[in-house]
Amino acid sequence: MLIREKVRQAVGLLREFDIDCWITFTRESELNGDPVLPFLAPGDVTWHSAFIVSKDGRAHAIVGRYDRQAIAETGAYDDVVAFVTGFKAPLQEYLKTLAPARIAVNYSKGSEVCDGLTHGMYLTLQEVLSGIGFDERLVSAERIVSALRERKTPAEISAIKEAIRHTQEIFALVEGFIAPGRTEKEIAAFMTAEVERRRLVPAWGQATCPAVFTGPETAEAHYGPTGRPVERGHVLNMDFGVKVDGYCSDLQRTFYVMADGESSPPADVQKGFDCIVRAVTGARNAMRPGVQAVEVDAIARKIVTDAGYEEYPHALGHQVGRSPHDGTALLGPAWEKYDHKPFQRLEAGMVFTIEPRLTVAGKGIVTIEEMVVVTETGADWLSTPQLDLKLIS
Amino acid sequence: MLIREKVRQAVGLLREFDIDCWITFTRESELNGDPVLPFLAPGDVTWHSAFIVSKDGRAHAIVGRYDRQAIAETGAYDDVVAFVTGFKAPLQEYLKTLAPARIAVNYSKGSEVCDGLTHGMYLTLQEVLSGIGFDERLVSAERIVSALRERKTPAEISAIKEAIRHTQEIFALVEGFIAPGRTEKEIAAFMTAEVERRRLVPAWGQATCPAVFTGPETAEAHYGPTGRPVERGHVLNMDFGVKVDGYCSDLQRTFYVMADGESSPPADVQKGFDCIVRAVTGARNAMRPGVQAVEVDAIARKIVTDAGYEEYPHALGHQVGRSPHDGTALLGPAWEKYDHKPFQRLEAGMVFTIEPRLTVAGKGIVTIEEMVVVTETGADWLSTPQLDLKLIS
Repeated sequence: MLIREKVRQAVGLLREFDIDCWITFTRESELNGDPVLPFLAPGDVTWHSAFIVSKDGRAHAIVGRYDRQAIAETGAYDDVVAFVTGFKAPLQEYLKTLAPARIAVNYSKGSEVCDGLTHGMYLTLQEVLSGIGFDERLVSAERIVSALRERKTPAEISAIKEAIRHTQEIFALVEGFIAPGRTEKEIAAFMTAEVERRRLVPAWGQATCPAVFTGPETAEAHYGPTGRPVERGHVLNMDFGVKVDGYCSDLQRTFYVMADGESSPPADVQKGFDCIVRAVTGARNAMRPGVQAVEVDAIARKIVTDAGYEEYPHALGHQVGRSPHDGTALLGPAWEKYDHKPFQRLEAGMVFTIEPRLTVAGKGIVTIEEMVVVTETGADWLSTPQLDLKLIS
Repeated sequence: MLIREKVRQAVGLLREFDIDCWITFTRESELNGDPVLPFLAPGDVTWHSAFIVSKDGRAHAIVGRYDRQAIAETGAYDDVVAFVTGFKAPLQEYLKTLAPARIAVNYSKGSEVCDGLTHGMYLTLQEVLSGIGFDERLVSAERIVSALRERKTPAEISAIKEAIRHTQEIFALVEGFIAPGRTEKEIAAFMTAEVERRRLVPAWGQATCPAVFTGPETAEAHYGPTGRPVERGHVLNMDFGVKVDGYCSDLQRTFYVMADGESSPPADVQKGFDCIVRAVTGARNAMRPGVQAVEVDAIARKIVTDAGYEEYPHALGHQVGRSPHDGTALLGPAWEKYDHKPFQRLEAGMVFTIEPRLTVAGKGIVTIEEMVVVTETGADWLSTPQLDLKLIS
C-alpha cells in the first residue's frame, strides 16, 4: 500500500523535475542497503536489483529469482523480471526500450538519505550503461529522493503521530520512576521494558535509545546510559523515540531533581529552561514553506547566545521519517559538514525536530526536543511541547 | 576487545598486501552504514567519520564530537579527533603527515561486503584528497576487508558455534510441534517465541527467519511463512538462524510428514534426501585451503544432476559471519552475477554454508544447509550434519 503510493508519487516527481527515469540499484540490502529501498520493496533483496520508475508512468523491477514473488505482490510494478545467472542483459534490454536521456541514481555528496548507491554498484551500472552507449546519462537523484521522503503523506504523518503518542506516554510513566539513587541504566531499563511491553522497537539503536544523562560533566549526547546515580540538585535529560509502522519519533525532555529544602528549581536552572522554551517556540513560529532552513536555526541560536549561553554545537533540528535523521533540508547553521542542507527551503509535509540545548554549570544539560510538521501556512506541533521543567521531588 | 583485535589484524593485512593506509569513510551509519564498521566502532556514527589504519601500525579516527567518547573507549585508536563544524581540515592534515602512496577504500564491484563506501562519499573523499594533491591514490580495499571478515579469530568461531547450538536446539524443539494441520505461520511463530525466550535475535529479517515451506509449489525460498497447512505425504523444509554476540548461524533442515499407513518415507523422497546428503558430504570432503570455491560447487552440482535432478538455481554455499551472507569467496558456479567470487581460493578460518537443494515432484523441496569451517588441512563441521529425514508421524 505504502509502496504503491510512493511509486506513484515518484512518477509525479520525475515529471516535476523533468527526469526521464530513476533507478534504485542495490544488492544484499540487509547488509548495505539503499535507504530508499523500504519505499520500493517490502523487505530486503539479495542479488543485484534494479527498481526503475519512468516519467511515462511505468514502474519495472529486475530482481533475483527468489526475491521476485514478494516484489510482485506489492502491486506497484507493471513488470517484475526475475533472473538466475545475470542481471546485465535484462537491465540493458529494458533500458534500450526506455531510451532515457537522463537517468537519475541515488548518490549525493550532501545528503546521506539520497546516497544509497555504493561506489562499486555505481561502477557496475556505468559498465552496464556503457554497453548500450548510455554511459553519459547518469545524474544524481537527490531531488527525487529528498522530495519522496520529505513530502509526507497523511498515512506517514499518522504513523509518526502514533510513535509520538507512545513516546510521550513512556516519558510520563518514567517520571514516576526517576528518584535520587536510581542510575541512568535503571531508568533506561524501565523505559526499554515499557517499549517491549508495547511490542514496539526503539527509533534508533537500543544502546542509546533512550539516552539518559544526569548531572554535570556527562558524555553530552550519543552515549549510552551509565551507572551514574540521580542526585538531588541535578538536571537530568533524556533522548528517546520509538518506531510505529516503520516511522520514528525523536523527543527530548528535561527533569530537575529537587535539592533538600527546595520548593522550586533554582534560578539558574529555571533561567536555562525558560531560554530553551523560548528558542523552541521562536523557531517554530518562524517556520513556513519557502523559509530557508538556516534562518530557523539562526533564530533559536541567537535566543540562546543572547541569554549568555554558549551556542549548541549541533543543528537546531533535523527531519524525521523512516529514519530518525531523515530528509535533506536541515535546520542547521552554515557549517562545512552540513554542506547544502541548511540552504534548502521548507516545504509543506516536512516533519522536523527542534532541539536546542545549553549547559547550566554544575547542574547538567537542559535540552528539549519537539516535533513539528510544516503546513501550507506555518508549522503545527506534533508533540505536546514541554513548557515546564519536570520536577522530581 | 573484538575491535582492538580486528584493528590489529588490519595492520597485519596492510603489511601482507603492501598497502600504506586503509580508510573507512562513512556517515549516518544506522541508515546507510559500511558493513565493515562493526569491526571498527562499537556502534553507529552520525557525521562524516574516517577510521584510518596504516601499515606503520597506527590507527586514527576522525569523528563528530558526540561520537568521540564511545570510539575512544574502544582503546583501538592511538588518537580520536573530534570535530564540530567540519571534517575536511583534520582529515587533510592527518593524511599529509601520513603521506600514503596508496590509500585503500571500501569499494568493490564483485563483493558487497567490501562495498560500503557510497558513491557520494567517494566523490567527497576525492575532493578532500584533491585538495592535498592525493587524488590519484585511491585503490579498492577489497582484499583487506575480505581477509578481515574471512579469517575468523577463535572468539568469532566461538560465537558462531553458540549461534549454531541454539539453532539446532530450536530445530529439535519444533520437530515436536510440526503436525498435519498446523500452518507454516504457526510453526514459524513457535520458533520465534523460542528465539525471544532465549533473548536472541534472528540472523536475518524476522519476516523470513525462520522461512517455512511445506509441500509442492511453494514460493521456493526468501519468502515468509504462509497460512498453508502441513499435509500428510508432504516434504517440509526450513531455513533459520540466530545471532550470538553479533555472529550468525544459517541452517536448513528437511522434514517428511508420513502419509496414512506409511512406516517409512516413499522411495522418491528418500532418494532425493540421500542425494542431498551425498552432495553436502562430497562438497565438504573437497574443501581445504587453496581449492578454488567454484570447484566445490561443481562437485555438489554434479552429484545432484547425475542423480537426474535439475541443478539448484543458486550457489552451493556462502560464507557466514556478522552477516548471514558474508565474505567474498563463494561456493558458486561461474555465473555473471557472482562476478569473481567463485574464483577465490579457500583459506583457513573461512566459515561456509553448504546448501544444495532439489525438488521431489508433488511432494516438496529437499534441502539441507550445514556449516563448516576451513582448517589447515580440510574442513570441520560446525553444525551436526542432518543424515536422516526428520519424520513427522
